[in-house]
Amino acid sequence: MLFSKNLLSDSIKNLALLLIFTFIFTNQAWADDGYRLWLKYNRIQNASMRAAYSKSFNFIAVSGNSDILNSAAKELQTGLTAMLGKPVQIVKNPLNNQNGVILSVSAGIASGDGYSIGMRGGNTVITAPKDAGVLYGSFALLRHLQQHLPVEKVAGQSSPKIQLRMLNHWDNPEGTIERGYAGSSLWKWYELPETVDPRYTDYARANASIGINGTVVNNVNASARFLTAEYLPKVAALAGIFRKYGIKTYLSIHFAAPKTLGGLKTSDPLDPEVRKWWTEKTKEIYRAIPDFGGFLVKANSEGEPGPQDYGRTHADGTNMLAEALAPFDGVVIWRAFVYKADPTADRFKAAYEEFAPLDGKFAKNVIVQVKNGPIDFQPREPFSPLFGNMPGTPLGMEFQLTQEYTGFATHWVYEAPLFKECLDADTYVHGKGSTVARIIDGSLHNYPLTCIAGVANTGSDRNWTGHPMAQANWYAFGRLAWDHTLSPEAIAREWTQLTLTTEDKDVSTISDIMLRSREIYVDYNTPLGLSRPWTGSHYAPEPWQNRSSRPDWTAIYYHRADTLGLGFDRTATGSNALQQYRPEASRAWLRAETCPLPYLLWFHHIPWSQNLNSGRSLWDELCHRFYTGADSVRWMQKQWAGVKSSVDPAIHADVTGRLMKQHKEAIWWRDAWVLYLQTFSRKPIPTIYPAPGRTLQEVKEIVNSYLMR
Amino acid sequence: MLFSKNLLSDSIKNLALLLIFTFIFTNQAWADDGYRLWLKYNRIQNASMRAAYSKSFNFIAVSGNSDILNSAAKELQTGLTAMLGKPVQIVKNPLNNQNGVILSVSAGIASGDGYSIGMRGGNTVITAPKDAGVLYGSFALLRHLQQHLPVEKVAGQSSPKIQLRMLNHWDNPEGTIERGYAGSSLWKWYELPETVDPRYTDYARANASIGINGTVVNNVNASARFLTAEYLPKVAALAGIFRKYGIKTYLSIHFAAPKTLGGLKTSDPLDPEVRKWWTEKTKEIYRAIPDFGGFLVKANSEGEPGPQDYGRTHADGTNMLAEALAPFDGVVIWRAFVYKADPTADRFKAAYEEFAPLDGKFAKNVIVQVKNGPIDFQPREPFSPLFGNMPGTPLGMEFQLTQEYTGFATHWVYEAPLFKECLDADTYVHGKGSTVARIIDGSLHNYPLTCIAGVANTGSDRNWTGHPMAQANWYAFGRLAWDHTLSPEAIAREWTQLTLTTEDKDVSTISDIMLRSREIYVDYNTPLGLSRPWTGSHYAPEPWQNRSSRPDWTAIYYHRADTLGLGFDRTATGSNALQQYRPEASRAWLRAETCPLPYLLWFHHIPWSQNLNSGRSLWDELCHRFYTGADSVRWMQKQWAGVKSSVDPAIHADVTGRLMKQHKEAIWWRDAWVLYLQTFSRKPIPTIYPAPGRTLQEVKEIVNSYLMR
Repeated sequence: MLFSKNLLSDSIKNLALLLIFTFIFTNQAWADDGYRLWLKYNRIQNASMRAAYSKSFNFIAVSGNSDILNSAAKELQTGLTAMLGKPVQIVKNPLNNQNGVILSVSAGIASGDGYSIGMRGGNTVITAPKDAGVLYGSFALLRHLQQHLPVEKVAGQSSPKIQLRMLNHWDNPEGTIERGYAGSSLWKWYELPETVDPRYTDYARANASIGINGTVVNNVNASARFLTAEYLPKVAALAGIFRKYGIKTYLSIHFAAPKTLGGLKTSDPLDPEVRKWWTEKTKEIYRAIPDFGGFLVKANSEGEPGPQDYGRTHADGTNMLAEALAPFDGVVIWRAFVYKADPTADRFKAAYEEFAPLDGKFAKNVIVQVKNGPIDFQPREPFSPLFGNMPGTPLGMEFQLTQEYTGFATHWVYEAPLFKECLDADTYVHGKGSTVARIIDGSLHNYPLTCIAGVANTGSDRNWTGHPMAQANWYAFGRLAWDHTLSPEAIAREWTQLTLTTEDKDVSTISDIMLRSREIYVDYNTPLGLSRPWTGSHYAPEPWQNRSSRPDWTAIYYHRADTLGLGFDRTATGSNALQQYRPEASRAWLRAETCPLPYLLWFHHIPWSQNLNSGRSLWDELCHRFYTGADSVRWMQKQWAGVKSSVDPAIHADVTGRLMKQHKEAIWWRDAWVLYLQTFSRKPIPTIYPAPGRTLQEVKEIVNSYLMR
Repeated sequence: MLFSKNLLSDSIKNLALLLIFTFIFTNQAWADDGYRLWLKYNRIQNASMRAAYSKSFNFIAVSGNSDILNSAAKELQTGLTAMLGKPVQIVKNPLNNQNGVILSVSAGIASGDGYSIGMRGGNTVITAPKDAGVLYGSFALLRHLQQHLPVEKVAGQSSPKIQLRMLNHWDNPEGTIERGYAGSSLWKWYELPETVDPRYTDYARANASIGINGTVVNNVNASARFLTAEYLPKVAALAGIFRKYGIKTYLSIHFAAPKTLGGLKTSDPLDPEVRKWWTEKTKEIYRAIPDFGGFLVKANSEGEPGPQDYGRTHADGTNMLAEALAPFDGVVIWRAFVYKADPTADRFKAAYEEFAPLDGKFAKNVIVQVKNGPIDFQPREPFSPLFGNMPGTPLGMEFQLTQEYTGFATHWVYEAPLFKECLDADTYVHGKGSTVARIIDGSLHNYPLTCIAGVANTGSDRNWTGHPMAQANWYAFGRLAWDHTLSPEAIAREWTQLTLTTEDKDVSTISDIMLRSREIYVDYNTPLGLSRPWTGSHYAPEPWQNRSSRPDWTAIYYHRADTLGLGFDRTATGSNALQQYRPEASRAWLRAETCPLPYLLWFHHIPWSQNLNSGRSLWDELCHRFYTGADSVRWMQKQWAGVKSSVDPAIHADVTGRLMKQHKEAIWWRDAWVLYLQTFSRKPIPTIYPAPGRTLQEVKEIVNSYLMR
């Protein structure tokens, strides 16, 4: 006998103690800093569930060999090993083995980037027509297991409805991010290409896990740097990593680069030398990055150069670039975000007026990228009237994930309802059911190219997005880009299960907060169709802002408050912007009486005392929204406090702090608007609400703190 | 019998396997991302050493109760538990126990912030006159154990030579860092005070571990925001964390704040309303932060407002603030970094000319903070002639840790030799041995206040400093601030042992690289006394830069290259700046024949063909330096490759990448200078060196990439 009984017991005791100690210590070191996003792969604590899963996943077999397939196998290995608490090997040949995952590229029911998962010969088989589909299927399997769903139920197939599912990074060469609230840029341009941050791979994994297949690495207010021989190898180093996860790399370009970089006398898109310069530059890019995606362009917009500088049209500029990219199957994504500084015009109408007449004039490899609303990523906007009005030109969607107008990193706003509201909006251009989603996915106008982009909310912060809950916006964007029929609720539940807890009750509580969060924000921030695209700090309330370098960069241009009332008349008695919509789409909006309250002040100038269909006067309804909105943050706090036991303590504490700040700032917004608008309405705040504990001047002073140099 | 033999064996086997698996997995998750700095507390692998240590550290007993003592006990617990692999408890009363650590505050041989460590009654006893001293002693003990030194040898005492040992953060309110190369600011101003990043505590721990006891959280180009009622609670939240680690919080102030923030008509320091405003504002600050340290001021410097705007002197401005701070024992730290845009003047002389006449005119609680050299943190400068020339005014030292002029985050430059060169420089103001260090530590002029500051190189990058090896500069600064008699070599070895490896041979190899790194950088970047304080990108070589908004922001102002020769004549035939030094200090510098080569072009305009005491002509010597400097990066690469087996793979790969970049850029600098200077010297590059593989124009084009918008 090798051990005496006592020795044995002692050995076991010591081992067990050490194990417990290691475990405690490990857990401490692993306090959740949010870095792992929704790819946590936590060990499944329920032993019988773990055992059940374990039986089905003894190996991963890859038939075929490619970087993307290897990424899929590696991810499965990482995920399964961690969740099951046992090593899972990657094998080349499954032979007749059972109870493994088999990855295989072959034509099947799934199309495009799609995949199907099925059970065959005792194995879980992921097949797809393309490598990328296998990768997406692998992530789908992992997602399924992370949600603790039955193995058998994973079978099925899924294909994305939109071809190009992209992030747009507004990252500058010096490392800052325009409208970024999560630290500095992920891309370390000074260090590339020699030093390659391991984080680039985790970024690619996160994107691939939700089906994102393209990324524009630099700001649309673009530096020409990225087109230089010095920078292309840097971009290529990133592209080399992204490629392994099925992600194509794109660049924002500076339209005047032929002059500033090429030394030409002009950047006129019809000039042969200019066209030659772009052709050569494009060839150079493809030599460095053979699968380069194409160019994103902000031209003749907010001071950026463009074809109009030479008397040419947007189509002229676009088509020049399209011609250079066409031999390589590259695309031009041309932004429709344009507006002139005309005090008599309505910025709402500008994009339509400039672009609708150009419909059909763009080359085949062009996408015109349209922001969801006609102005600029406000907390709520009607859908852009361009959607549906360019049947001959593929229109791409541009959503904003980064919370420029929705509270930076201190307000919890789940954006899926905002995205969905736009996607589900009916343009009526081919009768009822002509939703924006059906325009974007190409089904309505048979677009040959389809595209959806999210302005990224990522940065160098350890948790990627600043506010831990803002990870859900990145996630939801990817999921909706893949399948716009998913509901915000389903995505919220899914994300919560992957990221925070699998406790059913708490999943419901958290997704409840998420689903109400945007409406709460709108209520205290911009209720009833107010908007806030003023200059200054986009962090602080400034409805009084009335001076700027251009009229449409003031607050008063938008809300039009006066002693009579509030709101922008966009009916026939006003700017008549509503005429840009189909009558069926705008019918309800045309009359104040029928206009849904969330859109009221977008379209009408309403007298302060006018009774709304809520039964309250405009003034009272405004007060009601501002007050109940701010109060609702307390509700969010209480709900969040209730899930403390099942959420990681570090994340729980972090969000608790942010909710405190959010409440304080919600009251700040409420007070700013109410006190400011009161100078016009000259009405009392309904007595059921406490009067603001400060004067308008005092509120302004706080705002001024944030405007000081 | 509870278990059958087989069952028992199986249990042990399973436990052991799980343990091994957990261990492997844990180690993977702990791949070194540099976050833990020099506070790694890795488990001691050598079992007998671990056992020996374990015997001595069974508990930690704290006599007394304070936040700082708790921090000390907690740090010891964290460190000992991790290094020894066993739980070590904190107890209130050691009774007659032996083999523990006892922390106690009591007068002893150590003074000020000092501590002593001794063995008493079988325990390791750390005593100090102040709580902070106990904390420093605790870190000293941990440092000792991390270096695997014998327990007995830890006994001794140490007291810092300088009172205020500070970091200056050039961090802006929006999260950017002026001259920062490691991501964005650590301080999340929008989220404070409600959300408190756990990283603030780790920042404080790191500083306390090397004796730093003050931090200026905002840029010297200061926003007035930080003085507002909105921002003071944010600053107070940081101060509340730093306080627990013995660190006082300071603010940079905007001198015009009485106007811009207070709404006064003037910021004239002699105006009674202005004085009252500062008095009230200071009281408000101390209400929020009772142990607030004081103000750092950049005034009448590079466009910042100051007392001279009102015809007052620096002393007038300083003393106004000093008066407001005096009741609270706060200090004013006033920067001497001033110079006028006068093309006929020598910027070298400006600080001396403005400040030396004011000696003795400053209030008691004022420190004048002087950069180590007369210009601006160049890779090598002579010491500032102010040192020694203000016996009646405490002069503080300002070093720059962030690598503004030493290669951002892509060049490995260990700065301790640079700091030490200045500290050891002899001013001769009280005869031989009147070193700069003895001025700074107050011993030469009996300063009542002593201060040393480092412009921080920290940022939000996971590894804090961008270049992993730049952590050593933070570390070395702290260690020298505590004890300027330490050698750069000792600090390099110590840091390497704590941070990278305890393998003796590899410690030597790495510290060898470190000790040579700055000289190598100077050789390829600014040899023989060249300098580079030009505007534009401080990243790229631009010796040709000849246009700017002011003459002293061009390159040609400094190097004065012409067809005759190179260098700035600062002897009597030139600007006569050398007259600002004592004759004994400047004797060797006065004549080109005796001037040490590293300082030659700082003081002399030397003909291209003039033979130097190296035996080479100026031109040949320049070529020699540029070429051997760039070549030496290859040597660094080889040495670094040799330590691969004992350094964490992630860190090794990261530094390997950076060394590749450094080599590429060293050649870029070499080519830029050689090709540019050749247009004046009209001499061939010595044939032993390969000609640059590109033209001057081509080099400029690469530089231009980094200057593009």
